[in-house]
This record gives sequence, structure tokens and C-alpha cells, in this order.
Amino acid sequence: MKMFSNDYLEGAHERIIERLAATNLEQTPGYGEDVHCERARELIRELCGDSEAYVKFLVGGTQTNMTVLSYLLRPHEGVISADTGHIAVHESGAIEAQGHKVITLPNHNGKLSAADLKEYLRTYWADETAEHMVKPGAVYVSFSTESGSLYTKDELKAIRKICRKYDMYLYLDGARLGYGLKSPECDLSLKDIYELTDVFYIGGTKQGALFGEAVVFNSSVSHKDFGYYIKQKGGLLAKGRLLGIQFETLFEKDELGDCLYFDLSAHADMLALRLRRELLEDGFSAYGESPTNQQFFVFPNKLLKKLSKKYTFSTWAPVDKDRTAVRICISWATKDEDVEKLLKDIRKAVEKLSSR
Amino acid sequence: MKMFSNDYLEGAHERIIERLAATNLEQTPGYGEDVHCERARELIRELCGDSEAYVKFLVGGTQTNMTVLSYLLRPHEGVISADTGHIAVHESGAIEAQGHKVITLPNHNGKLSAADLKEYLRTYWADETAEHMVKPGAVYVSFSTESGSLYTKDELKAIRKICRKYDMYLYLDGARLGYGLKSPECDLSLKDIYELTDVFYIGGTKQGALFGEAVVFNSSVSHKDFGYYIKQKGGLLAKGRLLGIQFETLFEKDELGDCLYFDLSAHADMLALRLRRELLEDGFSAYGESPTNQQFFVFPNKLLKKLSKKYTFSTWAPVDKDRTAVRICISWATKDEDVEKLLKDIRKAVEKLSSR
Amino acid sequence: MKMFSNDYLEGAHERIIERLAATNLEQTPGYGEDVHCERARELIRELCGDSEAYVKFLVGGTQTNMTVLSYLLRPHEGVISADTGHIAVHESGAIEAQGHKVITLPNHNGKLSAADLKEYLRTYWADETAEHMVKPGAVYVSFSTESGSLYTKDELKAIRKICRKYDMYLYLDGARLGYGLKSPECDLSLKDIYELTDVFYIGGTKQGALFGEAVVFNSSVSHKDFGYYIKQKGGLLAKGRLLGIQFETLFEKDELGDCLYFDLSAHADMLALRLRRELLEDGFSAYGESPTNQQFFVFPNKLLKKLSKKYTFSTWAPVDKDRTAVRICISWATKDEDVEKLLKDIRKAVEKLSSR
Amino acid sequence: MKMFSNDYLEGAHERIIERLAATNLEQTPGYGEDVHCERARELIRELCGDSEAYVKFLVGGTQTNMTVLSYLLRPHEGVISADTGHIAVHESGAIEAQGHKVITLPNHNGKLSAADLKEYLRTYWADETAEHMVKPGAVYVSFSTESGSLYTKDELKAIRKICRKYDMYLYLDGARLGYGLKSPECDLSLKDIYELTDVFYIGGTKQGALFGEAVVFNSSVSHKDFGYYIKQKGGLLAKGRLLGIQFETLFEKDELGDCLYFDLSAHADMLALRLRRELLEDGFSAYGESPTNQQFFVFPNKLLKKLSKKYTFSTWAPVDKDRTAVRICISWATKDEDVEKLLKDIRKAVEKLSSR
Repeated sequence: MKMFSNDYLEGAHERIIERLAATNLEQTPGYGEDVHCERARELIRELCGDSEAYVKFLVGGTQTNMTVLSYLLRPHEGVISADTGHIAVHESGAIEAQGHKVITLPNHNGKLSAADLKEYLRTYWADETAEHMVKPGAVYVSFSTESGSLYTKDELKAIRKICRKYDMYLYLDGARLGYGLKSPECDLSLKDIYELTDVFYIGGTKQGALFGEAVVFNSSVSHKDFGYYIKQKGGLLAKGRLLGIQFETLFEKDELGDCLYFDLSAHADMLALRLRRELLEDGFSAYGESPTNQQFFVFPNKLLKKLSKKYTFSTWAPVDKDRTAVRICISWATKDEDVEKLLKDIRKAVEKLSSR
Repeated sequence: MKMFSNDYLEGAHERIIERLAATNLEQTPGYGEDVHCERARELIRELCGDSEAYVKFLVGGTQTNMTVLSYLLRPHEGVISADTGHIAVHESGAIEAQGHKVITLPNHNGKLSAADLKEYLRTYWADETAEHMVKPGAVYVSFSTESGSLYTKDELKAIRKICRKYDMYLYLDGARLGYGLKSPECDLSLKDIYELTDVFYIGGTKQGALFGEAVVFNSSVSHKDFGYYIKQKGGLLAKGRLLGIQFETLFEKDELGDCLYFDLSAHADMLALRLRRELLEDGFSAYGESPTNQQFFVFPNKLLKKLSKKYTFSTWAPVDKDRTAVRICISWATKDEDVEKLLKDIRKAVEKLSSR
Repeated sequence: MKMFSNDYLEGAHERIIERLAATNLEQTPGYGEDVHCERARELIRELCGDSEAYVKFLVGGTQTNMTVLSYLLRPHEGVISADTGHIAVHESGAIEAQGHKVITLPNHNGKLSAADLKEYLRTYWADETAEHMVKPGAVYVSFSTESGSLYTKDELKAIRKICRKYDMYLYLDGARLGYGLKSPECDLSLKDIYELTDVFYIGGTKQGALFGEAVVFNSSVSHKDFGYYIKQKGGLLAKGRLLGIQFETLFEKDELGDCLYFDLSAHADMLALRLRRELLEDGFSAYGESPTNQQFFVFPNKLLKKLSKKYTFSTWAPVDKDRTAVRICISWATKDEDVEKLLKDIRKAVEKLSSR
Repeated sequence: MKMFSNDYLEGAHERIIERLAATNLEQTPGYGEDVHCERARELIRELCGDSEAYVKFLVGGTQTNMTVLSYLLRPHEGVISADTGHIAVHESGAIEAQGHKVITLPNHNGKLSAADLKEYLRTYWADETAEHMVKPGAVYVSFSTESGSLYTKDELKAIRKICRKYDMYLYLDGARLGYGLKSPECDLSLKDIYELTDVFYIGGTKQGALFGEAVVFNSSVSHKDFGYYIKQKGGLLAKGRLLGIQFETLFEKDELGDCLYFDLSAHADMLALRLRRELLEDGFSAYGESPTNQQFFVFPNKLLKKLSKKYTFSTWAPVDKDRTAVRICISWATKDEDVEKLLKDIRKAVEKLSSR
């Protein structure tokens, strides 16, 4: 069985495992106060182009979202998200459990539109009874989105501008940041992300690490007492070094000036786009427009049944009674031959089905 | 200036004021343990047709909604509401502040539809990752709704049936319960409401009391420890007697077997429907279909400007650049001549505007 | 039966009832935006000696404490209180329900001591792992305290100084503020309270109103968005006028420049101290030192049994197998003859018991 | 520099690292639904002697405490803990952030006493105003405690009995469970712990794993929907396998029927007790009575200064102006020669200081 159902099916890139083994018996202070964390922070600050960027490591994505948003928002404030946003749908109410409403606007291919946002805020602030409605305190975007799509630099700038105007934070969920940034269709760099947001995180879990997310606060945003929040929300890893070692490995530069994090992302995107191209050529329809590692296709149910003996995908949505949209996730761990074999097996199955 | 902008503009029916004065120097224990509260509870239990119904008095509506829902839901559960529901829009995030998501479904003239509810639940429970999404633990309906509309007995039964099937509580917000029950279009009695819901409340604030809402738990639903919640959420009135005295006055029967609460409601509905009928005859359009004390009309902005010198209404929604939907609230305190005068002034203004 | 068990046994001073009746059919906007609230705010600002003081009216004490502390504290912060503080003991966990720890220090006759506070903070901030412990963000004091005692001006100043040093808010719970200020042993004025605290409230419920507490923010403290909190926590009274009318009545000046609020307080204190003096002369022991309306005595259980046919007191604490400490509450509603009669009945009962 | 400041200074036992490497490229479903987690659960159920025990893996201790207690308690309930309990002191208010008061009772060598507990509950339930005070819903004990001490079987039984009587859950924090169970002074087995508590957790982080805690619900206690809580509180590890693999390695039996978890614990305890014995013989005083891996001694400040060039300990408490209590943590990673060297260096330093 080969699984394409998501991008956290394997452990970690082998270099990470080696580094964990090599450093295993070092004694270090806990909670991220060790040399590995410090070096990882340095590497990330450098990528952001700001030696004053504030960097903290957490274990997982939901934990990170709830900790950051709890920090940025006051009790009467909510966060605006596309209705497909992870915080709106797939975190079992973690944001509400912190006391905050997730205010949803309709998504456009997985993205929030600046126009909708503007209209929502205009209406909100024009309302005499605004005080009886949750105050919008932050905007949440994901990059790449849950649908694999990407904000362009102009789109992000437009949202940013609105946030500034209405005195709201802009927070970017980068669970799949690398896959986003290395897409051929992306016109943003990590430095741009840093500059255009107030806080964002660099996802590790889905991008080659065992686990771990690196939260980055723009140096213009206060991070005072953020450490208390990490502890209180249960996100403070005793052996913080494990996070430092992983991000150090992912972001240190090789002789060519490249780093593992982006190499893995770029390779996965390349494979994903190859899969997309070939399946479209084969006559399949895409479900949405994704230029990143998550690919969505409409498949006949009969085909899916055949493939299910050898492959797992994510069921995304029913399309009609004979067809279903599925997500195929390519990851840092996917090999060229995995995609080749998948393509071959799809074609073989199609042939068999049509020859009946 | 005559205000029609809402139904809590005056103090209370004079009989309540008199009763408060008459009992003022009685000494009573606090927190609802006095004879007036006990008698008021008795009167309400009788109307519910169940001497085991559990009744508690709180001060306001938002307080009641958040206290009851916090009691009924576990931390991982949310409440389903029409997107126009008071808890979804106008409580400054009080439900989320208790940790619970308000899951919204599109309203149909202010109401939740059983069909939408069914489909939502079917999809939720069919999802393999349901555990990553907020568990629906209760359904919230308001009666009459924020749009003045009413659930029929059949509609409420259908929702009730779905709640039973999916093991969810059904909670009814009766801020305007009397106006709902006394509408000529209503086919439900208070006893029906009691029997078809798990918990509901009888609104006092908008229905002739100074303040106060009577929460009623069906005797089949546990109310163990509910008292702690009232205290913890800040809703426990030290001089609980004030609530008892008011509900006692509202619900005690006169020689004809009627009670003040419903007399006031019926009169307001009658006036509201008269206003509606006459304005429709005059050629105005209604905005939505309300058979209760809140009436919604589309008025030319020019007319509104003219009327604004003598009247206040609630601005509801812009319709187009020349017209606006407004809410005209008739209440327990509105007199026949208030409505007559309003109609006359509207007609006079229309005439003037058309004569230009 | 005559009850002395607390100070919220009756309705309100008759002048308040009259005023509520007289204004009953006025139409006013809701939520505290009416002329009565505005006038009451003016009167309170004047007493504070600061026309920029920010004043809001809430219904009850627990509600006020939780709303203000939720506003002043960030999620990782707690509030320091004497272990006898109302928020520490008698609010069913309302502060914790807002997410905040109540950090308790031992009380000294119901009061927090500056020395204990200083030592606690010194130790906290010297700890390397402070981030793993709740950050002290505010100090809570009550005046008069739950034990009837009073902070002197010097004591309050000392606590204030420490709060400033450690960047914490000082919040004063004035549920019985009047009884505190009018005690012959008090060396503080309302203006002093205003100047020495960041936020405090003027209790109405126990001081002659039907209900209501007036929160006052020092003008040097931000109150931005506090209105959202009142609504979200369920404390926004629709007919806010009821609060305005009551505080207007309590604080408007008569021809002598006095106001009802303080007249009632002074009279109750005078009666309470007379009761104290006479019972001490009779040979009873006081339980603690209270110079205000709450008086605590150690009574033989046999005496209590005898008195229980005609009187109620609060049981405070068992002293030994034969004696119990009880609280006798004198209030704005207590008459001279009530105290005289009580004294007579106590003496008669003592006589009977000793004559056996 | 050799660090003895805590028991999470190194990575993990090498067998865990090897196993992580060996399984690294296996594809597994996420969130604990993999074969490694299932096998680890099996091994733990076996140790508990109940094939119906419910086992879930979380990443860290604070996270586990807050998730379990949030599950066990209703909003109006609090948890009783010794005042030295981890949840009372060192979790930055994580329990309060879930809305629950931590009710503290004085510790006795780090332990809660059944007598204190009984008295607290007797008083609580005798109080007429109990509803105004947080309802005790659970009891928290740690084993071994934060002071290194151990409950005897009788002590735990006595607490258990009280919990049953007052309908409260008994929850045991086993961050250092192995060090507790393998102490020569312990008269409890893991099976006893399982049987005497409602929920407990087996600590991994301080006991040889990289991270991870195994929560165990007694089969008599409902665990319905606990999965939602893990996700909502941010504790659901995407690659749950990492937890399964570690606990599998720690608990699988070798040819002698032993398992790594207890071997490591026993060795650490043995070294710790040797250190204790020798230092007491040398004339040092212990600070408290600990029969487990954490040892507490009173050291002259001069000695500490000398040792600080080569060693780190935890400062525990000042004793007087010349002496300080410190904690020396022995862990799964400590070697015999580490302790020998430490003893030698202490003796050398003492000699030098006395020869001045």
C-alpha cells in the first residue's frame, strides 16, 4: 500500500534523524534555551532579513494557531478567516476554546479576498451596535492554503493594507510554507512573508521534520510575555533542543547556499505539478487550482475503487453520484518513482475499466 | 420624539412598579429563595403543565443564553444556530467566550430549516475526521425570531426529532416568547414549547418587566448544579425577589383566567399587525414576513428623513440607494393612539413628498 | 422574624422606588445611553474630583469583579487577593472561569498586608522559572473588607506603591464602600479611593439600591473597548436607565450638600457601632475588629438557639463546642428600634439562661 | 560542565533513537492510529492488568494535566491539590486557563493528606452557601511528588476512599512514575496505581523518552469524546507514531521479563539513594525525605560556589544566609561514574574550604 493521503505519513528526512542521534547525549538546558535553538533562530532571522525577528518553536500547528491568536487577540476580539481556513474547520474549536470567535468569509479557491474583507469591515464599523458584535482583531490566512492555492504578493499586500487601516493583526499559517514558496507560481519570498505579516509560522511537521513549527514575530510587533502563553497552552516542549536541532538541520546552508527545507519543498512541488500536468493531459479534471504539493482531481468512483487496493488518497468532496474529488498529497518524502508508478497504475486502471 | 426603535424603551407595566413598591420593605432571603420566586415558579410550572419543571430567574438575555449553553455543552461541543440568531450575531461573542463555537446555517426568514440541519449533521457524522471538527451538541432557535417570524409546530417538531436522533439538546430563546405565542399565526402554546424543547426561557425584559428572564428546564433534563453556573457567570441577582415579584405579577391569573404577560403580548401583536396591514394597503413593501410585534418595511430614504424629526426606528438593511429597510417595534407599552398617530404622520409625509 | 443575616434583605430606599415610578414611562435608549445614566455619571465624577473619570453601571458584584478583572488582566496573568477576598472564596470560581488564577496571601483581619505582598513579588520575580508561574497582573482589595475591616490611607498607599513598582493594577471592590467611608475610623474619602486605585466600584446593592454597582476607572487608565466586555460577560442591562436612576437618586446632593448614599451608610455604621459598644459592655467578645456595618460576635450556642426564634444572623465560624461566631449585619434599612429591640432580646435571653 | 539540574537534559535512551531511525520511512496514518501506538497501548494495558484500559499518548506533562482535568471537570468544578503540586505552581495557570480553580491544601513533605482532604470536604459540604464556592470535582496527586516523596498504598487508598465518598475523580500525575514505582520504599505497583486512580499518566519525558506521556483511563471511567479534547487543546501530534514507537520501546519485555522503562528508573533510583546515603554519612543534611531520583540537600553557599564551576543543580530554597537547599536530579541518563565523580568533587571542595 502506498499512501498519498497526506503529507505527514513518514518520520523525517534522514539528516534530521542522524542529527538527533549525533546530539542525543549532549546535556542542554530545557525549554528552547539551548545552542541548537539559538542557532536555528539565527538561521531563520537571517532568512527574514531582520536580526531582531523574534522566533519561538512549538510542536504542532493547531497548538501554534491557538497560542498565537490567544496572544494577539483581547477577549472581545475575533479573527477573520476564509470559511475553509484550518482554524475555522479542522481544529475542534481550539480558537473558540480560547474564547475567540472565528469570523468566516466565503473563500475564493481557498483564499480570503481583500474585497470581501473590506466590505465586512466597512459594514461592521458603520453599525451603531458594533459593540454588540465581536470586534475583528486579526486576519488569518494560510499559505499555501488548505486548497493548495497561493496568495500573490499583490493580494497579500491588499489584505495587509486593510489590516493596517482597521488596526488588526495579520497572521499567516505556514503549515505548508515551503511548498508555497517554492511553487513556480509563487511571487513571494520568505522575506516578503516576514515583511507583509505581523506573525507567521514556518511549518516543519509537513515539510520534512518529525514535528515542529517555528513562529516568527515581526520585530515591529511586541512579543512581551509570549513565553508564558506557550507554557500555559501546553505547548512548551521540555526538551526544546529537539525543535532546535530539526530547524537547524532544515535551514543551514549547504555549499551552494541552498537549504534542506526548500530543496525538499521544491522537489515535492515539481513532482506534484508533473502529476497534475500528466493527469490533465490524460483528460482528468482538476478540482480547484493548486500550484503546490497538494493536488485535487475529480476521479470516477470506479477508478477510485480499483486504485484503493494499492493507494490511499484523501476524499475531498462528492462531485456527483459517479465521481468524487480526491486530494493527492506529494510530500518531501515522495520519490520520483512513486509518482511514476502512480501514473502508470492510474492509466492501467483506466484502460481496464474502458475495455470492459 | 416617539421611539419605535425597540421593545425595551420604557420601564415596566405599572402593576409591576406598584408591586415592587408594595413589597419593598419585606425582608426576604436572597438569591431566589424567597416566596415571590417560589410563587412565580409555581405559576410558570402550571403553564408548562408539569409540576416538576425546573425554573430559574436571570436578569438578561445574553446572560441567560451563555449560562444555559455553557451548562448544556461540554468543552468540545458547539451550538447550531441560524446565521441571524442572536447568539451568532449580537452577543459580542458571549458563547465563544464560554469556549463554544456557534455553528451557523443559513436562515430562512430568520429561521433554521430542518432540512439544512439534517444535511449538516449527516455530513458531519459521515466525516472520518469528525473529531477534528467541533461536535454539534445543541441547537438554538429563537421564538419569535430576530426577524419576527415563527416556527410552526411541525417545524419545531421536525427540528426536535433531529436533535433526538443526534443526541443534541434543543434550546429556545424566548426573549419575545409572548409576542410569538399570541400572534394569530401561531399554532403553539407555552405548554407545547415546554414539551418540544429541552430548555427555553420566557423573556421579561421586552415583554413588560423591568428586566428578567425565566429559564425553564424540561423535567426530563438534568439541572443538577445549574445554580453554580448562574453564580459563576455573574447572573445571580442578590435580591432575587425582584425577579420573583415581576414574574408573579406577569403570570398570575385574573378573574377571566388571563394573565398580564399574554394580555400585553396580544395587544402589541394586534397593533403591529394593524400597522402592517395598513402600510401594505398604502403600497409599502414589507421586508420579510413577520406576524409578531416587530414589523419590517422598505421605506424611501426621503420619507425616513422626514419622519426622523418625530420618530426613531431601527435601521435594518440598505435596500438600494434610495430605500432602506427599517424595523418598527411595537411593544407592551405602545398605545393604540401611538400607532394611529404614526400612520397619520407617515401618510402626511408621503403626501408632502409626492406633492413636490 | 427579624433578619440580620445580610445587608440585601429589603428592596431599596423608598426614594428610589418613587423615582422609578415617576420615570417609568419615559422612553429612553438602552444600554446606559440615557440621560439618567449620564447624570449619575456626572455626580460620581464630581465626587471623584475628575471630570474625566470613566463610569459604567453593572448589575451585581461578582459580575463586576469578573468583568473588570477580565479586562485588566491578560490570559497569563493572575490577581493577588487576601485569602478571605470575595473573589477568592465566594464567587463560584468566576475569576478562574475567565481564565485567571486568584493568587491568595494570608489575610490580616480581612486585609492584605503590604509586607506580604512585597515579599511575594520579590520572590516571584527572583525566580528563574517565573515564566512557569502565573504572572501577577493585579491586586484586589475590598473596602470595607469581607470582615468589616478598613485599610488606612497609609496601608492603601503602601499597596499602591508596590503595584506601581511591579506594574500591576490596583482594583478595589467597593460592594460596601459607603459603610467603609462613613465609619468614624476611616481616614479615606471617595476621592482618595479614586486617586489611589486604578479601578474601583461603588456598591449599590448592599447600600440602598435595588441592585447596581458603579465601576469607576481612573482617567489615567485606558478603558478602551470596556463596553464590549460588559456585553460579552452578560452584564449589559438592556434598560440601563434603571441603574442611572438609582445612582442619580443615591448621589444627588440635598440642600445641605449631603447625599442619600452616604446618609444611609453613616446611619448604618452608627447603629452597628452602638450595637458593638453595648454588647462589648455586656461582656460579649467581638470576633475580629470591625468598625463598619458588619459586626461579628462570639455567642454561646444556647443563646443563639434562643434568639433563632425571632432573629437570623450569619453563622461565621465555630469557636469551640459551646460557642459560635456570628455576623450581625446592619444595613441602610435597619431602624434604631430594630437594634434596640435586638439588644433587649439578647439581654432578656441571657438573663433567662443564667437564671436556670 | 556536568548538569544535575533536572531529569530532561539529554535526548532519549539510544534504543529509542535506533527505533525511530529504523521505522523512519514507514508510512503510517496519523494521530495515533498506527500499529506502533496500538502495540504500545497493548503493552500498557497488560501492565495495568486490564485489557479494557483506555490509553492515549500526549506530548508533555502540562498539556496532559490540562487536557485530562478539562475533561474530568465541569465548568463549576475545581481540582484539589497539595500547594506544592505541579498544577498549582508550575504550569503558568494552565488549569485556570481551562476555567478551573486549583484548590490548594498544605503539603506534607510534598503530599496531600487524607485528613486535610476530609476536613476540607466536610466543611465545604456543610456550608449553606456551598453553591457560591467552587465545587471540588477532582483530586490531583503526583507520584513521585515534586519533592521526590511517595504515597504509600494506604495513603492512596485513604484518598481514594474520600474521592469515592464525595463523588470526585482521583487523577495521578506520573511525570516521574517509574522513579516512584522502582524506589525501594515503594509498596505500589503500576497495576495498583491503575486500580486506585480514575486516570493517571505514565511519564516518558523525564524517564528515557524524547518526549511523551501515556494517559490511562481506568476502564470504569468514561473516556467518550476524549479524542476531541486532545485535538482542541493542541495536544494531538500529527505523527502520533513517534509516541507509539517510544512507549513500545520503553515497555516491551526483554528475555528476563523486564522492560527498559523500569530498568532505567531502578538504576536512577539506586544511584540517587547511594548519593543520598553517602552525603548524609558525610554530614550533610537532607532537605525533606525523598526515596526517589530527585535528592534535596542543604549545602553551604561557599560549597555551591565552588561546585558551580563544574556542576549545575536546581536552587530549591534559601535556608539561611549561609546555606541553600538544592535539588540534585539523577536520571535515566546518569552514569555510575557521574555520581562517583560528583561525590569526589564535593568532598574535595569541602576539604579545601575547611583547610582555609
